Amino acid sequence: MPLRVVLVAPRNPLNIGAAARAMSNFGFLELRVVNPYEVAFREAKSAVKARAVLEKAREFSSLAEAVEDCALVVGTTAKGHRALEHPLRRLETGARIIRKKLGAAPVAVLFGSEKFGLSNQDMSHCHWLMRIPTREAHGSMNLGQAVAVCLYELVRNPAAARATPEPRRPASAGDLERITQILEEVLEKSGYVHARVAASTELKIRRLVRRLDLNAHDAAVWLGMLRQILWKLG
Amino acid sequence: MPLRVVLVAPRNPLNIGAAARAMSNFGFLELRVVNPYEVAFREAKSAVKARAVLEKAREFSSLAEAVEDCALVVGTTAKGHRALEHPLRRLETGARIIRKKLGAAPVAVLFGSEKFGLSNQDMSHCHWLMRIPTREAHGSMNLGQAVAVCLYELVRNPAAARATPEPRRPASAGDLERITQILEEVLEKSGYVHARVAASTELKIRRLVRRLDLNAHDAAVWLGMLRQILWKLG
Repeated sequence: MPLRVVLVAPRNPLNIGAAARAMSNFGFLELRVVNPYEVAFREAKSAVKARAVLEKAREFSSLAEAVEDCALVVGTTAKGHRALEHPLRRLETGARIIRKKLGAAPVAVLFGSEKFGLSNQDMSHCHWLMRIPTREAHGSMNLGQAVAVCLYELVRNPAAARATPEPRRPASAGDLERITQILEEVLEKSGYVHARVAASTELKIRRLVRRLDLNAHDAAVWLGMLRQILWKLG
Repeated sequence: MPLRVVLVAPRNPLNIGAAARAMSNFGFLELRVVNPYEVAFREAKSAVKARAVLEKAREFSSLAEAVEDCALVVGTTAKGHRALEHPLRRLETGARIIRKKLGAAPVAVLFGSEKFGLSNQDMSHCHWLMRIPTREAHGSMNLGQAVAVCLYELVRNPAAARATPEPRRPASAGDLERITQILEEVLEKSGYVHARVAASTELKIRRLVRRLDLNAHDAAVWLGMLRQILWKLG
């Protein structure tokens, strides 16, 4: 089911365009606008590559009409601890509920005007409110950035955070040991280590090489470089 | 330890200001700028309530100097599957590693210019790259929005996402508004509310109805009951 991003009385067309761009970035394409301050928002240049979202945006003269077909209406607010008449959830929690609800029915997420946010009248249409965890000293976000953050939270994949993908095949212990041996020889030949002076030096070098966390490709490059240096050192 | 947000060759002062605002929103105050296209960025009006971040921003003429004191340097990119020379992590994963590292040492997160992103030269200074999970058809985000999303991921609280689920099939906003309207009429006709006495009563009733958390079936029942009452009240 689609998510509807509803901008209520937005003042700056650039922010409407930025919202459209973030929507397109994260794959949400249904924009609804209630009483925009400036009606020529469809030309906003800030909607880079998201003109389709702006063109298909629907305009409404009342919030009730804009959310008529939605089973869940969620308002966003920067206010944290004032006496809100509604249940208030942090974005992390709210997004989880929205994701779930979207499986069954359309959901609207409301963003108020840049200057005043959602009015009490607007909020009375909401089932509950949601707050981006900004710091209390500076809670109010730019409209386009707030939309981007909320939509990101909706598409972020919790499973992806658990994964620790190793982009490249790690070097084998054999590779590392070959590098260790040649590096030792190079250090001896170059006078950095006096031959047989200390067996502990070998261990230090071995650990040093392990801590490099080399991948297989880089290990081959290092081996080549060290062989060349060793050859040059005679 | 502090996080350093590093903007490399940003072109538009408005985007620098927007980045500063998002930084202030999420409590990151150390901005570094490498070779800005327009040097008068400190006056950017988009840095609403974040002038302090802009004023304290440090300017550098090379990326190497800008990240000199950082133990981990992470580049951001919109490119997904091209042959990057660096390990590439999704934001969810990358942020987790950054959070961990910040416990011990300063970390830099790099954002490239609006037009070209980070160059290969810039990327060669990075330990690894990070990608916001935008859709492939439209990967490139607005600079200020990209900064906001990355910083949000760094402050978001995974524990906050564990919330109790809502099991029921919900009523639509249209159903709820119809109930609100008829209930109001009933209350007026029954003398509970004196017509037009208080506009705030309407808002109270609307919120009252939303808090019922009605499912679609119950909403129909309530609507039937209220219609009957209204008819009886004449």
